[in-house]
Formats: sequence, structure tokens, C-alpha cells
Amino acid sequence: MTTGMTMDLDKPRDECGLVAVSGSGAAAELAFLGLYALQHRGQESAGIVTVDEKGAPRSHKGMGLVADIFDDATLKGLEGSLAVGHVRYSTAGRSDLRNAQPMLVEYQDQPLMLAHNGNLTNAQELRDRLSREGSIFQTDSDSEAIIHLIARSRRQDHDQKVDDALSQAVGAFSVVVAIGDTIYAARDSRGFRPLVLGRLGEAVIVASETCALDIIGAAYLRDVRPGEVLKIRDGHIEELRPLPPAEPSACLFELVYFARPDSRVWGCSVDSARRKFGRQLAIEHPTEADCVFAVPDSSNSAALGFSETSGVPFEFALIRNHYVGRTFIHPTQAGRDFKVRVKYNPVRETVEGKRCVVVDDSLVRGTTSRGLVTMLREAGAAEVHFRVASPPVRFPCYYGIDMPTREELIGANHTVEEIREHLGVDSLGYLSMEGMHAAVANHGPFCDACWSGDYAAPLVDLMRRKEMQST
Amino acid sequence: MTTGMTMDLDKPRDECGLVAVSGSGAAAELAFLGLYALQHRGQESAGIVTVDEKGAPRSHKGMGLVADIFDDATLKGLEGSLAVGHVRYSTAGRSDLRNAQPMLVEYQDQPLMLAHNGNLTNAQELRDRLSREGSIFQTDSDSEAIIHLIARSRRQDHDQKVDDALSQAVGAFSVVVAIGDTIYAARDSRGFRPLVLGRLGEAVIVASETCALDIIGAAYLRDVRPGEVLKIRDGHIEELRPLPPAEPSACLFELVYFARPDSRVWGCSVDSARRKFGRQLAIEHPTEADCVFAVPDSSNSAALGFSETSGVPFEFALIRNHYVGRTFIHPTQAGRDFKVRVKYNPVRETVEGKRCVVVDDSLVRGTTSRGLVTMLREAGAAEVHFRVASPPVRFPCYYGIDMPTREELIGANHTVEEIREHLGVDSLGYLSMEGMHAAVANHGPFCDACWSGDYAAPLVDLMRRKEMQST
Amino acid sequence: MTTGMTMDLDKPRDECGLVAVSGSGAAAELAFLGLYALQHRGQESAGIVTVDEKGAPRSHKGMGLVADIFDDATLKGLEGSLAVGHVRYSTAGRSDLRNAQPMLVEYQDQPLMLAHNGNLTNAQELRDRLSREGSIFQTDSDSEAIIHLIARSRRQDHDQKVDDALSQAVGAFSVVVAIGDTIYAARDSRGFRPLVLGRLGEAVIVASETCALDIIGAAYLRDVRPGEVLKIRDGHIEELRPLPPAEPSACLFELVYFARPDSRVWGCSVDSARRKFGRQLAIEHPTEADCVFAVPDSSNSAALGFSETSGVPFEFALIRNHYVGRTFIHPTQAGRDFKVRVKYNPVRETVEGKRCVVVDDSLVRGTTSRGLVTMLREAGAAEVHFRVASPPVRFPCYYGIDMPTREELIGANHTVEEIREHLGVDSLGYLSMEGMHAAVANHGPFCDACWSGDYAAPLVDLMRRKEMQST
Amino acid sequence: MTTGMTMDLDKPRDECGLVAVSGSGAAAELAFLGLYALQHRGQESAGIVTVDEKGAPRSHKGMGLVADIFDDATLKGLEGSLAVGHVRYSTAGRSDLRNAQPMLVEYQDQPLMLAHNGNLTNAQELRDRLSREGSIFQTDSDSEAIIHLIARSRRQDHDQKVDDALSQAVGAFSVVVAIGDTIYAARDSRGFRPLVLGRLGEAVIVASETCALDIIGAAYLRDVRPGEVLKIRDGHIEELRPLPPAEPSACLFELVYFARPDSRVWGCSVDSARRKFGRQLAIEHPTEADCVFAVPDSSNSAALGFSETSGVPFEFALIRNHYVGRTFIHPTQAGRDFKVRVKYNPVRETVEGKRCVVVDDSLVRGTTSRGLVTMLREAGAAEVHFRVASPPVRFPCYYGIDMPTREELIGANHTVEEIREHLGVDSLGYLSMEGMHAAVANHGPFCDACWSGDYAAPLVDLMRRKEMQST
Repeated sequence: MTTGMTMDLDKPRDECGLVAVSGSGAAAELAFLGLYALQHRGQESAGIVTVDEKGAPRSHKGMGLVADIFDDATLKGLEGSLAVGHVRYSTAGRSDLRNAQPMLVEYQDQPLMLAHNGNLTNAQELRDRLSREGSIFQTDSDSEAIIHLIARSRRQDHDQKVDDALSQAVGAFSVVVAIGDTIYAARDSRGFRPLVLGRLGEAVIVASETCALDIIGAAYLRDVRPGEVLKIRDGHIEELRPLPPAEPSACLFELVYFARPDSRVWGCSVDSARRKFGRQLAIEHPTEADCVFAVPDSSNSAALGFSETSGVPFEFALIRNHYVGRTFIHPTQAGRDFKVRVKYNPVRETVEGKRCVVVDDSLVRGTTSRGLVTMLREAGAAEVHFRVASPPVRFPCYYGIDMPTREELIGANHTVEEIREHLGVDSLGYLSMEGMHAAVANHGPFCDACWSGDYAAPLVDLMRRKEMQST
Repeated sequence: MTTGMTMDLDKPRDECGLVAVSGSGAAAELAFLGLYALQHRGQESAGIVTVDEKGAPRSHKGMGLVADIFDDATLKGLEGSLAVGHVRYSTAGRSDLRNAQPMLVEYQDQPLMLAHNGNLTNAQELRDRLSREGSIFQTDSDSEAIIHLIARSRRQDHDQKVDDALSQAVGAFSVVVAIGDTIYAARDSRGFRPLVLGRLGEAVIVASETCALDIIGAAYLRDVRPGEVLKIRDGHIEELRPLPPAEPSACLFELVYFARPDSRVWGCSVDSARRKFGRQLAIEHPTEADCVFAVPDSSNSAALGFSETSGVPFEFALIRNHYVGRTFIHPTQAGRDFKVRVKYNPVRETVEGKRCVVVDDSLVRGTTSRGLVTMLREAGAAEVHFRVASPPVRFPCYYGIDMPTREELIGANHTVEEIREHLGVDSLGYLSMEGMHAAVANHGPFCDACWSGDYAAPLVDLMRRKEMQST
Repeated sequence: MTTGMTMDLDKPRDECGLVAVSGSGAAAELAFLGLYALQHRGQESAGIVTVDEKGAPRSHKGMGLVADIFDDATLKGLEGSLAVGHVRYSTAGRSDLRNAQPMLVEYQDQPLMLAHNGNLTNAQELRDRLSREGSIFQTDSDSEAIIHLIARSRRQDHDQKVDDALSQAVGAFSVVVAIGDTIYAARDSRGFRPLVLGRLGEAVIVASETCALDIIGAAYLRDVRPGEVLKIRDGHIEELRPLPPAEPSACLFELVYFARPDSRVWGCSVDSARRKFGRQLAIEHPTEADCVFAVPDSSNSAALGFSETSGVPFEFALIRNHYVGRTFIHPTQAGRDFKVRVKYNPVRETVEGKRCVVVDDSLVRGTTSRGLVTMLREAGAAEVHFRVASPPVRFPCYYGIDMPTREELIGANHTVEEIREHLGVDSLGYLSMEGMHAAVANHGPFCDACWSGDYAAPLVDLMRRKEMQST
Repeated sequence: MTTGMTMDLDKPRDECGLVAVSGSGAAAELAFLGLYALQHRGQESAGIVTVDEKGAPRSHKGMGLVADIFDDATLKGLEGSLAVGHVRYSTAGRSDLRNAQPMLVEYQDQPLMLAHNGNLTNAQELRDRLSREGSIFQTDSDSEAIIHLIARSRRQDHDQKVDDALSQAVGAFSVVVAIGDTIYAARDSRGFRPLVLGRLGEAVIVASETCALDIIGAAYLRDVRPGEVLKIRDGHIEELRPLPPAEPSACLFELVYFARPDSRVWGCSVDSARRKFGRQLAIEHPTEADCVFAVPDSSNSAALGFSETSGVPFEFALIRNHYVGRTFIHPTQAGRDFKVRVKYNPVRETVEGKRCVVVDDSLVRGTTSRGLVTMLREAGAAEVHFRVASPPVRFPCYYGIDMPTREELIGANHTVEEIREHLGVDSLGYLSMEGMHAAVANHGPFCDACWSGDYAAPLVDLMRRKEMQST
């Protein structure tokens, strides 16, 4: 899977997935399988760090897919009963191994490891202060500040130092810190990003999504709660003093697009949430049609929901090619819609002469969707009705999702009618904000900043930059 | 994608896909995209050979996936307006680059290339004779005999030499031979394996399936007919004398499993054929149930057909992980069903407490299916009813499909009741032979040897071996 | 070592070195070490093929240096008591693995291997004839014709077929052919290129130079004689009927430059031959000077000989950097003589203010020499006297040495005075043809075609090409 | 060149070479060439870091040889007019890229780079203190402490911070620190390791040896003095306040073995120093003999000096194979002296029946020498007299040279007579300490700790460890 080819260019990208294992003789193996199941959360680099019997760290990282980076030999070399694993996308563009996580440093003769999902909104402020005080930064990553905060804390013991450090971090963090044989797992007070707790025999597992528990046959215990700090050693779990409380603000985009449909996120089946979005969408934007189908695979559930409520028959009309590679080819003669055709092909017999409803989970730039529509028209579709199972994305995310800039967000700059025209479809309908919230009303409260612009956690660095510019 | 992980261990494997381009300034690019679309037909090695302006061959081959083997630079180096491309699995176990196709040799100061899908049933006999006469073989491949037959033919010109060579070949071959600037495209008289003809502007395209035409925006002209030999130069197509006629015998497994659902094979939409198999299966093996779902993705169409006819609601209850790598991990602690869990995960909310119908397109060894069933039971399925949208596979294929040996074919050695018990399901139903043929009655006649044991083309080498053993 | 950096651009290049081992449980290891010692004869590719207990071939080849291509694992995989190894340069510019030797084909269900040092002067003629008769060529190499001649021979057994094939080859060949468990080692009737015979315990070793015997501790038995064909099996040596006799014509350039100084070639110590060339050079071109030094390392012996006879003190005034890599850097700012400075640096204290004699073994293009002279002048040399321990190279070699074209041979197009001026030296002296022959009068007769233009073996292909051009 | 094969196992290993360029548009190219010339000082890893126009760092490092690690593309990517380069061996056994230099960190929004030759004797003490204060260490290297000392310094500006840091370092350091566009070059007060200053046009070059200046055609200005701290920006050089003075103590092993013979080290031609060692050796240990020769190449100068004074004719009797690879083969059948034979081969004609004097520059373990002697005996040498152009090595080095442990130092545990017997030679003579010093009496004072055990700089960490053990 390649950066260029496999990622949905029209989708925002999650930045990370993480897994940690305590108290298992097969810690690295379990971490590997967990990362394998979390691959959709980050396809650029992956790493696993363990602590062996003598307390020495074992680390293996690489660029690319989990299954390409690790093999039997590397896993065997990752000895120890504690493992921390991480998959990531680059955010700031620096996509080299230096930024790959888990981060590993020597801390008072012990290995200290960190794996982070989310984004600190005061990372630069922390960095500036720490640098002034003599800390040397090795990476561009916002996560590194947490390590220095721990190392420089004047507090007594590790528990307190970790608390001290996390209390200074603002923004989104679901994080695992391991020092020696002890794992600290925590979520920021608003709980933007997911983190779940599981058990397999004696072992404790922490992971971004429940699918990482399923793959190893571990039982799901519960979510790590917003603001919670857990201390895990040899399979035992202890609840430390929580971080200062705040209004929870769980990311709703996880349900819309990011999480795997077989995962439970925010205590809710992802598949059934999407099914409800699709049903609500059918109510809000009904249409006469011969068939309804998804842009596979992330929209499958929503399309099926739309079909159920509307009565329009569900079809597999777009076939997706999953064999993609690590390099990106730029054909000179293959035409404008090449990137879409490489990935999708319509089933001509299914769409020819038909009034089609295409359901997509979200619309970010609109480029892929436009190519898809062209393709469907060429295959003979009589009408194309586009339905989006979430509202128009209009604002960037500062809590750990890599969104295009506002300029590139088609929903930020155009009316629905303009977008309809741009896509070249007969009708276009977005799920309403109210409809989306109503569909998952039993859960939440949710962060919907990318649709509404309501940012729950202070955007410290952004404000500082604006102040500087205005001075 | 890796040999170990991506292939369905429980499925037979096709051996090859091929594409040829004549008369395009972007021949290598088009061949690349064609192979990319045909990746499902062979994931072990891929190659493209072109002939440049000076008549010199340019070749690039590698082990692995198309998108990993080629990049902009290698494609740019493949100059010329004629290209032949090939993807393959190894059959005889020798899986190295030496056997990768297209084969390329110097023949009378011109490059001669060959790409072959199928299997000659008299390959060893030909090889023995040619070796006695002084031919030196470079590969293990049955395909190489065709090259030597051309080179040693006493006939006058290339057209006749190709005819001479193909007339001596017995068994299954959809083949492209290029000599200098000329392409010969042919199918054996029974037409076991597919081959289609397309056009893009001035260029002529030959490919195993229509999806290879779609990806480059080429128009589908028609199938190459059984026994037909076409001569293609600079985009012009000429029909040469056909091979001696025989009763057509198109591979039905292409419709059941191999071909992409968006392809037309045997003049028939693959998706709609599978839909019909599913509908017929619902008629033959109805059951009370709460939901029906596919083993994704190859069984999607059949499962939807089953749902349509039975009225049982269609669901996405099994999620497939497509992020697989080139290496195969063998976890020591991950348990027996690890291989299945790495690939599939059930949506617990969808199956819990439900009477489930699982539809698979075919059943070969039964190992994956058994693991799936265990997984569904653990996720809380109340009942599991297994439905197979084709009859029990009972015989090996000698015409280009890599089947397990008879000992490994669960259908060859067990009754349906025994298999039901082995899988641990509440009921099991296979599509009947009559039902399968009826569903595609407008097409054919078909080869159904792997179900019936009726082999259309003589098994020359097999008979020789048996004679030797009996002597 | 890289093509660009390690080869002396100003030197002709030998094309090959070979080694064969029969009757040793460590055949591949011995072949590896032999190739390692013969690395100077070919640095572009290397390969070893063995025949294992079951008669199956094991092969490993690669581009680059012997020590980079093989490791413990690859050697361990090369099972069997018979091994054939080869190092080579490309001649015709096609420098890919396809042409790497030993060649390996299946021949009547046995592996047939060939390793060749030399160049057939009727290769194209043979190739044309064989192609017309239906042979398929896999490589550009002239050596492949020998394989087809064996395969197509109508003679009775392998001994006769090998004789039949070699009798049709014209030009230079020191060759090893292995069929199954039998090795045939032969030299053409004129014996252009070397081949020696050694024994280590039960094992028989065939190699290009004696240094390949020394490295494994094998005893030198004798040279393979011109026209001789030896059959070696399980350590036993049998002399077959020799090829038709001809006047011997041993390559004198082996003594001048190619062979390692610690080897015995043509029954003569290479070091002492070069010492004699140097002594004779001092007699023919004496000069007043403060020091004499070599262009290291190939000219060391000649420079010491010059010092002995002239009484001018020997010095190490040029230091050679041996750490060279596989890639070639083209600095944009490093100046014209960069390539020379990367390789050599003068010892300023030794040359400053001194009258220097520089001894080189041969002068082909003159580019390196010119750069060296500039460097010595800049280091303060008062006078630079250049002495070449062989006559001016004026003609291309057709017997296995890769010479520049006549246009590039400085000696073919310029008088000694012109060359002196070009190099910018105070005086220039070449060893005379008579002096060179006199120095090695106890050995020979020798081929001196690159100096004299007297070609002993007919240049069949060259004549044919000229005839065609004149028609 | 490989760790295993190319290094003289019987020699101590230098740990590093460095080069820095200021004020050149081709800074990376010049640094590359400089490292290329310094390759003998470290063959395990190499790196270059530049600072581009925008002040951003560009870095490329790799394991292996300079010429293998860099190519045109990587050099082109290393934009900027300031470059720092480094080659190294691992000391503490951790030989991975993480420890490769130059080290690069972000320091107050500027890149800070460090390249270090030498060894701090209080590295662990500094590290312990810095860790307690919250510094996070990324490497095992003693050099990293210097970076943290700079970052944590309370002093005002960069000049003072660098001074502050270096003043706390004890032991041996020739070091280059670059912050933004400024280079600081310094040597410890005793000046254990070399560092020279050169100029090429507007550019200033700092390098370990003068051969790095020669390769780029730069003029040698002078040595950086012991205790001197230079500040270099845009080609301008400024002398800062020197470090506290101490008695100079230049490493004499640089002249004996490490430095290239074409370099000037300690203001002295390396070749002529070695020549003098050889002459003095001939005076101290004369012998009747027919020939004298070197263990090439490092002993060439000494052997020639021995010949001059003794009148015994100089010969090239041992030929060294320079074609070595990156991997190390362990033949199972090749015998005990395999490692020696792979590297050296005697010229039989030169040694057969002769009384031979072998000159080596130093003797550390004695294993290679013993193999050489066996080899010479087998080649027929009548007598073998071994002469070593330095005294017996008896003590480890703590100032930047990687010596075997005392247990492995043959000179530390055996009398000369025992060693003579062990080597199997007819006589053995070492240069005396007095003779060695007398030969270079115009230079110095020198550190001779590895022969005498007189350690000039305090061994802080060693003392601490001993204290801890004794407690």
C-alpha cells in the first residue's frame, strides 16, 4: 500500500493508531497483530518497542505497511513481556523514520517509550519553553514535548512526573508512556481520540480500537475514560489521579469515516452508526431511483442503510482494486481521471440505463467523487444522485486529523448547488448536522468542529501565531 | 500483498493474466495499467517487454505486485509502440524470476516475446522431442516449448511458423507472441481461457479480461474466438487461418471465482452470473434466517442474489483487512485460527443472537471456512447456515488453474454431511451442477472438469506418465 | 569497487576469470575463494553454479564484487562436489545479469554449465547459422554459441559433442564446460588465454591463474596446454583427443598488466617478468634522476626493476586510495583532474624539488597519466620523466581484451614526441618491442597483436562485416 | 570494504575522521571528497550534514563506505555552503546508524551539528549529571554530552556556551560544532588527535589529515593548535579564547600506523617518519638477509627505510588483495590461516630459498603475523626475520583508539622471545622506545601511553568505576 495510491485522496487522514501490551510472553507478536488490525489509522510508518528481561529496549521501525516492516525474525528479536506499537501518517510533511513512533529514549538508565494519537495544541509553546531551558529536540513531532516534560519534572516519582507532564499538555492525546516495566495509558480530559482496554489471559492490552483486541482474541474491558491515567504493570491495572475534568468531546469523524466498521468506538458499533446515518440520509434526501450503491468500502454501511429506508435496491456497482503498491506511477497518457480509474471500476451492466444513487460517507475535496461520476456517466448511467452521509466539512481539525486547508475544502467555499454542478450530478444531498447528531443521540457529547468550527480545547499555538502576525 | 497472506488459501489460483498493446506511443504505460487491473490473476511476478524504435527489446520484470515492480523510471525506459505484459503465479513451485513472463529471446536478430495463460497438456512430450533435437531450455515453464516450435519450424514465414507451433500444442492456451513489430494473439481451439480484444484510438489492446480495457478507457471490440489466430501490427488486425476446430469448452470457474465482477467474461457480466448463482442457490437451499452475508469480496454478488430471492436481509457482517504485506508472519502464540482472523473480523452487533446465512463462492479445502464459522460462533451467532454458490470441487484442473491435489480437496473425499459437520454449521448447501449450468444457459458450452472430471482436451503428459509407471 | 572508480580508465580490461572444482565437499567455498583471488580479472559480475547430490543445479550470480555477491548463506545453498565459477566484465556494453556467467541450461535432463575466458572471432557466424537452424539465443554473449553447438551435435556421446563444438570455434577460448558430474576444461589451439590445473587433496581445480590455487592452498600441477581438452570427474583427470594443432600465441599483455604479480603465467613469474621489463627499460631509456617510483600497484615490479638497473633510488611517492565504492560521483566543482586525485595523492616531501622518474606498465589513452603529471608538478617535482614498461598500444584486441577503439589509443595516432608533449613531461620512453620479447625470451611464443597488429587467429566476423560493407 | 575483511584484525583501529567546510557553494561535494580521502580513519559509517539557504539542515548518513553511501543525487540534495562530515568505527560495539555522526539536533530553532574524533574520559560522569537534570540522551556516544552541555549552558551567547561545554570535557577531542551558519573547531588542551586547517578559494576547510585537503586541491594553512577554539563563518576564521593550557601530548600511533603516508601529521611527513623508524630499526636489529619486504601497505615506508640503512634489497614479496566486500565469509573447510591468505599471497619466486626480513609497522595481537610467517615458510623461505617498526603495544588507549583488551595484547603478556617463538620466526626485533622518540625528536611532545602506560589526561570514568567496585 502506498502513500499515493492507497490513501483516499479525497478523505481526511487519521494520524495514528497505537497498541500496548503488558504481561505477555508474546508481547511483540500481539502488538504486531494489533497494529495490523489498526493499519487503516496510519500507513506511512510503523514501529514496535519492547523491554527485554534485562530491562534493555528492543526496537524495530520502518516506513510502510506493518506486514512489510516486520517478519518472523524481527518479531523474534523483540523480546520481552511489555510492548508498545504505533502506526502513523506524517502530519507536518516530514515523513521520515526519525519521526516514527514509538519514541524511545534512555531515561535515568531505563528505556522510556511514548506512543501518541492526537495533537497537542500547545506543542510549540511547550517546545519553546523547554528549548530555552536546555532541552534538545530530536524530532519535529509534538509528542516529544511530553517526554521532556517528564524528564524535567521536579516531582518525586514516575507516577507524579507523568501526571505533571500530561497536566501541561493541551489538546488531544490518547497516549501510552512506558518507563521500564510500567505502562501509563491516558486520554486528555475531553477525550478527543479513542483508547480501549482489553485483556487476554494475564495480559492487559491498550489499543486505539476494539478491532485490535478482536484479532488477538482479547476481551474488551472498557474504554479508557477522558482524563483517566492508568498505570499498568505485569498485567495489573491501577487508576491514578485523573487529569483536571472537562466537557467530553469525542471525535464524530471516527464514526463517519475513520474507524473500522467492526470496531466499537464511543461505546457504539461503527457499522450501526453508519447504517443510521444512511437511513437518516434517505429520509432527508429521498429520490426516485433504480439502484443505490456505495463508494466502497468505507461507505458500504451507509449505503445499505439508505437502501433499507428508501427501498431502492442495494447493488455492488463500483469495484475497488485493492492491489496497490508502494510507488506511485504518473502516466503521461492515461488521462485526467486515471487516479480514480486505477482504484474503481463500474459494473457496466448494473448502471447502464439506470437511475443511480451513490452514497459516500463524506466529501472533502471532491476530486475523486467527480471522477467517479464521469466514470458512471461513461458506463451509461441515466441519472446520478449523490448522497453524502455527513454534513459539508468546512473547518480544519487541530485535534489529530490531517485535513486539507480551508482553501481545498470544497464545503468551505461553495454552496451545495455549486458543488452539485461541479460534480456533474442530477442531485446532491448532505446529511444535516441535526440528523447526524440525532442518529447517535444515545452517545456523545461529540466534537463536530470540522463541520461547525466549534473548537472545544484552546488552540494555544494558533492564537500565539496570530498575535505575532498582528504585532 | 504477499503470497502467503493475500491469496485465499482456500481458493484455487489462476495462473496468469496477460495484456498486449500495439500501435500506441504509450504502450508500456497502457500495459502497466492493464496488468494493474489484472493483478488478481497472478500476484507472484510481473513483467513488461517492449520493442523500441530500433527494434531492440526493453524488458523489466520482478517478483511481487505490479505497482511495486514498476515505477515512472522503469516505465519510461520501456520505449516503443508495442508492449507485452504478464502477471503470474508459479505453478510447479519454482517461483523465481527465471520463469517470469513475458519470455524474451533473440530470434533471427529480432526480439521474440511470449505471454501465456493456460497450460499445455503435452508440454513434457514436446520438451523431450525438442531437447533430443538440440533445443536448449532456459526455464521450467511449459510455455517455452512454443518458442522452440516456432524457431525450429521449417515453414516459410512467421505467420506459418506460429501456426505450425500452435498446431502442435495441446491443452489450454490464450497466448500472445510478438516477433519484431508484430503481435500474434491466439486461443486454443477449445478456448479454455479468456482473451479479449479492445481498441483505444489507433491502438489495439489484447487482454485477459475487459477490466484491463476499462482502466485505460479502451473500447471492448469482441472476444478472441476459440482457435482464432490474430496478427496485429501498428494497430491493424488481420485474421489468419484458424487452428483446427474443436468443441468449445470455456472455463466456468472464471465466472464462479477468478474473474473480476466488473469484467465481461464469455460474453457475460461476471457480477450478474454470480448474482444468478446466488439466486439459484436460494431456491435450491432455502432456510429461515435473520441475515445473509458474503465472505468478502469474491462472494458479494452471490450473497446479494441469495438475499434478493430469499428475502433474507443482506448485511456486511464480515470485514476484510486489505492491508497485507509481502512477508508472512507465523505467530507462535496467536492460535490456530490466526490466519483467518488476520483477514476477517465479524461485526459483532450484526451477528449476535442472529440466524446467519454465510455465502461463499466455492469451497476447496475448507480450512478458512471452518475458521470463519468458529469466529462467527464466538461473536454470538445463534445459527450458521453455509451456502456455496457452486458444486463441490472434486477434480484437479489441467488447463491452467492451480488446484490442490485430490487428497486436499474436501469435496473429493467427503459427503456434504461430513463437510457440514467438519465446518460445524447448522446446515450446508452447495449449488447443484444443473443449477449452475442453468443459471448461465445462454452462454457456454463450458468446461466443468473440476466438478465433473470430464476433461475436454487430451491429458497427454499425464497418460504418458501413467504408462511409464505401469510398465 | 565500482565500474567507474576502481577500474583503471587508462588500462585495457580483461574480460574474465574462471575457476572449476571437481571432487570436493566444499566445492562452492573453494570456487568462491578462487574467484576472490581472480577478482582483478573481472569486477562487474560474478557467479557460481554447483550440481548437488541429486544432480540438480544450484546457482547464484550477481552484479558487483565477489565478496559482496556471496555470503555464508548463499554459499551454503550451493551444495555439491562440483562447482564452476566466473568473474567478468561486460564487453559489448550490455552489462546485466543475463549475460553473467557461468551460463546454465538444462541439457537432456542434466544441467550444463559453461564458463569462458576469451573471445570467439567467428561468434556471429556461428550464431547466424545456429539461429537459422532453430536455436534460440538467450544472451548476447559469444560464449552461448558453444552450448548450442554441443546441444545440436550429431555425435555420439558428450566427449565427442564437446570436441565437435570446440572444433568449430575460432579465436580465443579458455573454457570450462560441465555436464552433470563431469567437467571439460579446454584451451583453444593457440592458447591465447591462460588456464592452470591444480590439486587439493582429492579435488581437482582449474583456474585462470595460480593465485586462485594459492588462496585455497592447492598445489599447482601444470598449465592446461593449448588445444588440450581435459575430462575431469570426481577428482580424476583424463586427456581427450586434442583440438587441431596451431602455432601457440600466448597473450603477452597478461605479463605486462593483467595477471597478478604473485601468479605464474605462461610458466613464468609475473613479478619477475615485470622486473625484467623494468630493467630493460632502464637500459633503453636511462636518465639522470633523484628518485624512481611506480604508478601503484600494477607497475611496482617494473619500477623496482628500473631502480635496480639504473641505481636511481626507489620511492613510494604516489599513494593509492583503495576505498572505492560501487557508485560513481560526478562532482561539479572538483575540477578536471578529480578522477586522478580521488585515486592517487603524491607524497609532497618525496617529490618536491626532485627529478622524478615515473614508471607505468602501459599507456592506453593517456588521460590518467596526464593528470598524474599535473599533480606531481603541483607537488613541486623539478623534472618528470615518464617511462612505460611496454611498447605503444596501437591495435585493438579480438582475443578477449577490452581495448578502447583505435581512435582512443593514444599510441595509434601520435608520435612519442607528441605524446610526451601531451603528457607534459620532460622525457618519455617506451620499452621497445624487441626489448620486451628479449626480456621473456625463455617463454612464448607470444601474441603481441595489440602492439604489432599481427593477428594469429582469423578474424572471421570482422572479415564478413567488411565484405558486407564493401558490397 | 567490510568490517570483517578489510580491517587489519591485528591492528588497533582509529575511531574517526572528520571534515568541515565553510563558505563554499559545493560544500557537500568537498566534504564528500574529504571523507573519501579519510576513509582509512573509519569504515563503518559515514555522514554529511549541511545547512541550506533557509537555515534548514540536510543530512545523509549510512553504514559502510563513503563511496557506497553517497551518490550524485544524495550529494545534490545536500544543499548549502556549510557542511560537516564524519567517518567512524563503533567503539562500544553498538554499530548502528543511531550513533553515526555528525550528530544533528534542533537547538533554539537552529540546526546544531557535531563531529568528534577522540574520546572523553569523563563522558559517563557528564552523562549521569545531565540525566539527573532532565537531559534525554539519544545515543550511546560520549560525544552527545557536549551537545547537552552547550544546550544547558547558562552563558550568554553561542561562543561562550561552546567554551563552557568544552571546558567541562576531559580527555581527547578534536571536534567540530556547527550552529546555524557558524562552525566551531577545537582541540583539547593536550591535542591528542589531529586537526588541520586549509583554504580553497573563499572556503575554509577543517579536516583530520592533510590528505583531505589535497584531494580537493585546498592549501594547507596550519594545524589547529592544542586548546585552540576557532570560529568560522562564511570562510572567515576567528580565534576565540583558548581552553585552559596543558602539556601537549600528540598521539604517536598516528605516525606509526593510522595516518596516510601522504599526510602531514604533527607538522611532519608521515612517510618520512616511518622511513626513519625503519632506518632506526635496521640499526637496532640488523641481520644478514637476501631481501627485505613490507606487510603492505602500511609498512611500506618503514621497510624501504630498513632496506636503505641495511643495504638488504627491497622486494615486493607479499601481494595484497584489495577487492574486499561488505560481508564476511566463514569457510568451513578453508583452514586456519584462511583470513590471512584471503588478504595476502607471497610471490614464491621472490622468497623461495631466501633469507627474508619482514617489516611490520606494529604488532598488536600477532595473529595475522603468525599466518603470514606460515605462508612464507610454505612458499619456501629459508629464514624469516620479523622486524616491528614500533615498540610492543602493552596498554589500552583511552584517547580515541580502539585497542584490544590487555589480555589480547601479545606485547602485554609475553616476552620478545616468547613472541618470536609464537610467530615461528628466526629472529624478532622491535624498535625501542628511545629509538622511536629519537626518530621524530624534532616534533612532539608525544603521547606514548599504549607503549608506556603514561596517561596524560585523567581517566575520570575509569577511576569512578574502580572506586565503585572497591566499595
